[in-house]
Amino acid sequence: MNETIKAMFGVTILGNNSALPAYDRHPTAQLVTLNEQLFLIDCGEGTQMQIARYRIRHSKIGHIFISHLHGDHYFGLIGLITSMGLLGREHALNLYGPAQLIDIINLQLEVAHTTLPFPLVFHPLEKEGLILDHPKYSVACFETRHRIPCWGFLISEKRNPRKIIREKVIEKGIPAAFYDHLKKGEDYISKTGEIIPNESVTAPNLPDSSYAFCADTMYTEALADKVKHANLLYHETTYLKDLEERAIARFHSTTEQAANFAIKAGAKKLLIGHFSSKYEKLDEFLSEAKSVFDNTELAIEGVSYRID
Amino acid sequence: MNETIKAMFGVTILGNNSALPAYDRHPTAQLVTLNEQLFLIDCGEGTQMQIARYRIRHSKIGHIFISHLHGDHYFGLIGLITSMGLLGREHALNLYGPAQLIDIINLQLEVAHTTLPFPLVFHPLEKEGLILDHPKYSVACFETRHRIPCWGFLISEKRNPRKIIREKVIEKGIPAAFYDHLKKGEDYISKTGEIIPNESVTAPNLPDSSYAFCADTMYTEALADKVKHANLLYHETTYLKDLEERAIARFHSTTEQAANFAIKAGAKKLLIGHFSSKYEKLDEFLSEAKSVFDNTELAIEGVSYRID
Repeated sequence: MNETIKAMFGVTILGNNSALPAYDRHPTAQLVTLNEQLFLIDCGEGTQMQIARYRIRHSKIGHIFISHLHGDHYFGLIGLITSMGLLGREHALNLYGPAQLIDIINLQLEVAHTTLPFPLVFHPLEKEGLILDHPKYSVACFETRHRIPCWGFLISEKRNPRKIIREKVIEKGIPAAFYDHLKKGEDYISKTGEIIPNESVTAPNLPDSSYAFCADTMYTEALADKVKHANLLYHETTYLKDLEERAIARFHSTTEQAANFAIKAGAKKLLIGHFSSKYEKLDEFLSEAKSVFDNTELAIEGVSYRID
Repeated sequence: MNETIKAMFGVTILGNNSALPAYDRHPTAQLVTLNEQLFLIDCGEGTQMQIARYRIRHSKIGHIFISHLHGDHYFGLIGLITSMGLLGREHALNLYGPAQLIDIINLQLEVAHTTLPFPLVFHPLEKEGLILDHPKYSVACFETRHRIPCWGFLISEKRNPRKIIREKVIEKGIPAAFYDHLKKGEDYISKTGEIIPNESVTAPNLPDSSYAFCADTMYTEALADKVKHANLLYHETTYLKDLEERAIARFHSTTEQAANFAIKAGAKKLLIGHFSSKYEKLDEFLSEAKSVFDNTELAIEGVSYRID
């Protein structure tokens, strides 16, 4: 992961393949960097090896989100959790996923007589909406349309609605202690009782930026409102466009469908992945998607994508 | 796996590391080739990728033996089984392991709504002794001494007690249909009633050859009788000899202990593995073991070792 991405909002691909590993492509796993910490989305088999390969410090992972219980999205989780324990992790790990996930983890820990040295805090995904609300970011989950219950995640970096105009606040003598209130849009009342309107010392800020991970899903416009205007939209493209029937039968999507969905959702940029192991080369995925929605990139393992 | 090994009795190492993956070494997995088929012993995370890496046809794996339920010995199993299903396997897969293993597998298949297209035949390991008895080979299990219940496996290639002396059987006019009886030591009675003693047309054969996989274990002489005179003895060496105390505390073994065990068991050759991830280089493992038992080899991933 390059140094720039470490410091900003971005996503690094650890695995971009669907069900079967192939051509040295791994099952789904993505690392989102936000506010100096790491969120792991999905954790296919071998994710802990991929984390080591790209020299990522897994101690920085505070939250893991598992979209659904098909193996290519979580078979690496128990190995990663166990390794974190063996390496002496002490700080809490938050895990979000379908309710049965914790039964699987607990059974595997129990048969090994393993007690983790850190708190594993499980948050079952039960209904759509906010699952994590921090002053600087939030994560919401939403249901996709797949063969088994499956959740997508919308990760947003919150921005204050206003940004300070430095010369103005100095000119008006507003104390730095009040800057956070100004960023939220409040007026300042000076010691002499003078009201300094917020708009006179601040300017509108950029809107929140967001990463929408649509997990495994067949094409459905119903999702578009849930990920509206995402700065970066990840949508699966298990198949090229000629296999649309197969995609529908298997609750997956094609390049053309992903690109149409990006238009529908008003995404700024589209990231495509979850490639079927039947394809050795990926260039047609890119050309097919770009012919519909130009601002598309392939999810390539080891590559980080900025979200802005 | 080289062509010679494919045709004979041998073992190919797919993973030689202990608990944590490190230095591109993988957790335990070994493939035994015997009688034109493959037995997989243990299946740490990433084993299916290792199988692909070494271009092994996993359709030839008919039996999988899992020593114990520490993750580095079985976390790759559900992924391998699921992939076999996705690839349309139809012939039975026999799985041997601690009883709880099947609960874990079944739970993971159930949450994914997966029905395997092939019969998964589970054989829980409950007591020491024969678990597979075929006219040409046998597998027995035995308990090792580890932190949780753990099983070793003794895989033997059966040989007929006698081998035919070709010129003699032709000279005596014994029909080819009777050769199998001769190999078992029976005399031949000709149509005229003449008794041709077995010893006059056969010679003693080599004894059975065997591979003893001692799994994870602390040093214990009690195991020696169970793997007596193995042609190839695999014994773990998690640590170098200076960490004997740590080895005992963690129910593991050192180089010196493994080599002493090989002497005690009268092994022809010793194969050492399950190296701790604290060691980057392995040369001291070899030199320490060889200084006690010279006919020792390191278990190196991708390398096949003949059993004879």
